[in-house]
Formats: sequence, structure tokens, C-alpha cells
Amino acid sequence: MTQKAFQDYYPEQLSHCYGCGRLNNHGLQIKSYWDGEEAVCIFQPKPYHTAIPGYVYGGLIASLIDCHSTGTAAAAMYRLQKREMDTNPPLRFITAALHVDYMRPTPIDNPLELRSKVKEINNRKVIISTTLFSRGEICARGEVVAVQMPDNLYPPD
Amino acid sequence: MTQKAFQDYYPEQLSHCYGCGRLNNHGLQIKSYWDGEEAVCIFQPKPYHTAIPGYVYGGLIASLIDCHSTGTAAAAMYRLQKREMDTNPPLRFITAALHVDYMRPTPIDNPLELRSKVKEINNRKVIISTTLFSRGEICARGEVVAVQMPDNLYPPD
Repeated sequence: MTQKAFQDYYPEQLSHCYGCGRLNNHGLQIKSYWDGEEAVCIFQPKPYHTAIPGYVYGGLIASLIDCHSTGTAAAAMYRLQKREMDTNPPLRFITAALHVDYMRPTPIDNPLELRSKVKEINNRKVIISTTLFSRGEICARGEVVAVQMPDNLYPPD
Repeated sequence: MTQKAFQDYYPEQLSHCYGCGRLNNHGLQIKSYWDGEEAVCIFQPKPYHTAIPGYVYGGLIASLIDCHSTGTAAAAMYRLQKREMDTNPPLRFITAALHVDYMRPTPIDNPLELRSKVKEINNRKVIISTTLFSRGEICARGEVVAVQMPDNLYPPD
């Protein structure tokens, strides 16, 4: 895809997240994009992201759902406000609650595809539903309650 | 603590998990122990396990709750059956559902303490409630529905 990922709009001081920060060299550096009304993220697990041999670690799945969903929450709020993602004031969401149902073991040797939809959006809260696929099969379903980051958590520029 | 951790009883072919496998050099290698009726795990996040600067990544918290809870589920089932953890047939649990409520941002510069209790235990299912503390304050609460791993997922010796 040639469009810019949600995470590429995050300001530098908010780009160190282990899951989605483009400046965290140890991290997952996930990228999320709009695909119509859904937000999509493709992620290739490393061989060491395993649970039992051949299958993806559930904590990685939770992490992907978490970061892709909070990124989608921010993108959705910008879109609702008809604003570009690099305009001020910045909108950044953190996770209040995360739920994951693991439907079946997730094969590790294929890219994972996460597809998210906005379930609810209002003033400072967005609920995102996310489905995780491997080889076209649903392997997990997640829901994230994302809330706008309080001003006191914003790091200095 | 001098007692052996739950994870140190896992057979070799089930010790590659990113969260708790003692043989996964890239992983978190968490260790869980009984402390009376609770199971405890202490984990020091790395500086790169960050979300926003100064605070722990929520996906790491979910991962710790996940692995500590499935480990506790196995240990609890062995204890219920009055068996040592290295006796056959092996009992290993996988996560059917994971829920995390993030109560407050979790400081990254202190060890995290997870304490788990068995909420429900029956034939093949254990529900574990876990509380995560930093500096003695509750930062997150989790619940894991753990189910016994189906035989067809057991890797060969």
C-alpha cells in the first residue's frame, strides 16, 4: 500500500511504543491502514513469537489487537472530525480494556491479517472490534475500549 | 525463592513459548511460584517495553497476565489432583479468553508483581483472576479462561 500508515502520523515523542512505535527498534512496528470502513494491519510473526511449536503466541496476538485497535481509534476520531492525522491538537488513544477470544490455534508461518471496525465512538471513548485471520480463517476476535490519552501523560516535545 | 518455578516443570517441547518458555532466548521467560493460595510472578520490564515514555506497554501486561495465568491454571490442576508437576500425564493449559482492565499507567522502572487466584476450576477449564502491581499499587486486573491443551496440539517429544 502506498498510503501513509496511521502510526507514521504519530509525533516523535509518541513513537516509542513497543507495539507500534516506528522509533522502537526492539518492537513490533505494526502499520495500520484504512480499507474502506475497516482498518487493516498485516503482520508476519517471527519464528520466536511462538506458543507451542507451529503456532503464534497469544500475547503477541493480544499486543497486535491492542495497538492496531488504539491506532484505529485515533484514526477514526480524526476522520469523524474531518481532520488529517497530523493536525493539532493531537489525538492519541490508550487502552482502558482489552478482550481477546482465541478461536483456534494460529499458524505461525503465514502473515496475520487484522481487520478492525469501529463499534462505538463518542467524545473521548472509542470501542473497536478486531478480527484476526491466518490463511483466511478467523483465529481470534478482540475488543478494545480505547480512551483519549489524558493531557498529563503527554511527554514533552 | 528457592522453590522450582511452574515453568521449570514444563517438558522441553513445551518450553519454547515466547512468554514463559525457558528455552526461548528471545522471550520473556517469566517464572511463577505458589505463595499460599496465590501464585506470584515478578517481572522487570526492559526499557524498550514501553508504551508512552515512562510507562509499560499494555501488550506486555497482557502477555504477562496470559502466561502467568495459564501456568497457574496448570499448577492448580496438578495441586487439585495431588500430583507433582512433573508427573504424567502432563497437564498444559492454553488460553481460550483473556481480559485485561488497565486501571492506571504502569511505571516501567520498577519490577511488576502479578498475583493470581483460582476463580473456578473444573474438569478441563480453569478461570484465573490476576492483579498486577507496580510500587504496591494496582495497575491492571486480568482474567484468563484457560482450557486443557487438546492432545492433537502436543508436539512430539
